[in-house]
Amino acid sequence: MREVKMIQYGVGAMGSLMVKTALKRKGLRLVGAIDQGKRVGMDLGEAIGLDGKLGISISGDPQNLLRNTDADIVLHATVSFLDQVYPQIIMGVEAGMNFISITEELGYPWYRYPDLANKIDRLSRERGVTVLGTGINPGFTLDTLVLHCTGLCDEVKRITARRISDSSPFGPNVLDRRGIGLSLEQWEKKVSENKITGHIGSDQSMRMIAAGLGWNLDETVEMPIEPIITEVTIKLPYAKIEKGTVCGYNQKQYALMREEKVILFENEGRVYGEDEEHHTEESVHIEGNPEIKLAMPGLSGGISTASMAVNAIPQVMVSRPGLVSMKDLPNPAALIDIGRFFHYCN
Amino acid sequence: MREVKMIQYGVGAMGSLMVKTALKRKGLRLVGAIDQGKRVGMDLGEAIGLDGKLGISISGDPQNLLRNTDADIVLHATVSFLDQVYPQIIMGVEAGMNFISITEELGYPWYRYPDLANKIDRLSRERGVTVLGTGINPGFTLDTLVLHCTGLCDEVKRITARRISDSSPFGPNVLDRRGIGLSLEQWEKKVSENKITGHIGSDQSMRMIAAGLGWNLDETVEMPIEPIITEVTIKLPYAKIEKGTVCGYNQKQYALMREEKVILFENEGRVYGEDEEHHTEESVHIEGNPEIKLAMPGLSGGISTASMAVNAIPQVMVSRPGLVSMKDLPNPAALIDIGRFFHYCN
Repeated sequence: MREVKMIQYGVGAMGSLMVKTALKRKGLRLVGAIDQGKRVGMDLGEAIGLDGKLGISISGDPQNLLRNTDADIVLHATVSFLDQVYPQIIMGVEAGMNFISITEELGYPWYRYPDLANKIDRLSRERGVTVLGTGINPGFTLDTLVLHCTGLCDEVKRITARRISDSSPFGPNVLDRRGIGLSLEQWEKKVSENKITGHIGSDQSMRMIAAGLGWNLDETVEMPIEPIITEVTIKLPYAKIEKGTVCGYNQKQYALMREEKVILFENEGRVYGEDEEHHTEESVHIEGNPEIKLAMPGLSGGISTASMAVNAIPQVMVSRPGLVSMKDLPNPAALIDIGRFFHYCN
Repeated sequence: MREVKMIQYGVGAMGSLMVKTALKRKGLRLVGAIDQGKRVGMDLGEAIGLDGKLGISISGDPQNLLRNTDADIVLHATVSFLDQVYPQIIMGVEAGMNFISITEELGYPWYRYPDLANKIDRLSRERGVTVLGTGINPGFTLDTLVLHCTGLCDEVKRITARRISDSSPFGPNVLDRRGIGLSLEQWEKKVSENKITGHIGSDQSMRMIAAGLGWNLDETVEMPIEPIITEVTIKLPYAKIEKGTVCGYNQKQYALMREEKVILFENEGRVYGEDEEHHTEESVHIEGNPEIKLAMPGLSGGISTASMAVNAIPQVMVSRPGLVSMKDLPNPAALIDIGRFFHYCN
């Protein structure tokens, strides 16, 4: 295989980053793009803010584009919830294309959406294609990085992992969903109406870890989301966040096994003022033999999620067909020439 | 598949740890053991210091045991150099068994030993079995952990990784090879005779990273090994290290691409006195987009290498046949019931 032909499905803030990363890879060719609203009909290069055109007109008709384009894989970035993106995934699979999405709930969907997961799995096996949900989280910090470290362990008793991240690179979708920019009163009202969500994907990450370790969890629990109030006014590309309003959230999740908390997560996502110190963190603590404590400064969910999706292309192209999770694949790496990968897989 | 049947080849310090980890896994059954010298004929349980017997007599005749035992996989821990273990690997493969070794030079052998690597690859494909070299290093800190983190990157410019470890869990083989316990004069003489080696496997780790990133390295370079002198007397299970003698080594390695150092490694391995503070470290610094800086307290090469080998069993059992490297497989995890893995691979 000389070249992988890719369609970008969703050209918002995250989709634009995915296209920019894809353009840096050899052996990968963009052959189509899908979006809705004002970007339909625009050239993909212009839509994502490049100086020049890419010669690809953004389609507003996914069914038509997917059916009539010769492509190997769809890179997908629309919304976070599997029930909402399910028809989009099915369209790609029906068209005989592999499918990588950053939809958080696709990261390990067998527990929260067993029916949808089984349907996607069955259809993608029939069509001989692979479907994967990935990103930095789910996809790295709270699941595959944890599992990777447990490979060093003789036994594992408890896992604590934390991701404290900068939400600035996300688009209005994510900022809205987190209530960023609302007053505390507005925020509390929206929370009571279930209109604000913190991190999506913690159930999926805990289930992936449990499957990797052979743990039978009793249940996974999400604690109530807590607001963070900004002390300065923050200017973002997509919004202005006034002093005294909500600039982010903190949320804890845990998993119980035999009535003990065996997995504990903390997720914090917020935006920062220009002069504020950004406290970010990715950390994993494994209580076991040996004990493992790993930490790094927090990573931007934007570029890292986009990169993980693009970097997973070769692994997905050679994977067995069906719905897979990150724990089933060799680690994606920043391979500069995707065509080379297939050389190693002979 | 209900149960994986395993033979332990090499029952020294590291092999004993591998057996102890294997005994903690469900779905894995020990069916044979191979060693030489005084352990031949002993019960495996007694040889590794368990209270009871395991009902497995240690064989001194690998050819005979491998040919006449019904087993799925060999776990191998003898020496570090591929040319020395090559006949042992071939015996396992000829007997139709998958093979996991902690021989460092098997971690990514295609550059230093292209002929042996190709022979192992060809024979294992013919026999339908998989051969893997793994451990903490090669196998984790300086290669797969690095590659895993680059999955988050849009581009990578330079990689610096360091492993500062405690050598105490290793057996006399490794201690001897590092000249631990020698006077500085004895040590320098042995170094001049090429009888002392520091970390084995840095070429393999650099080559694995380069393959994962699609980098064409000019060459890999190992700097001269430097001794560390102990200020206290150190008692080990296998030796007593007098004050003023060599207690470890420090060594740097790098890889050049277009005349620039693009991969820089530092390896330090030493033993410590009872009251000395153990400064250990595993760290990865990726200069790229984004920049990634990850660190953790150093891990024991003993338990972590043994665990990685045992934890890789399910991944190797379902891998394509041939000689593979850690970058080709999903990450091993501390799966408590190996039989469960095969359920997920349908």
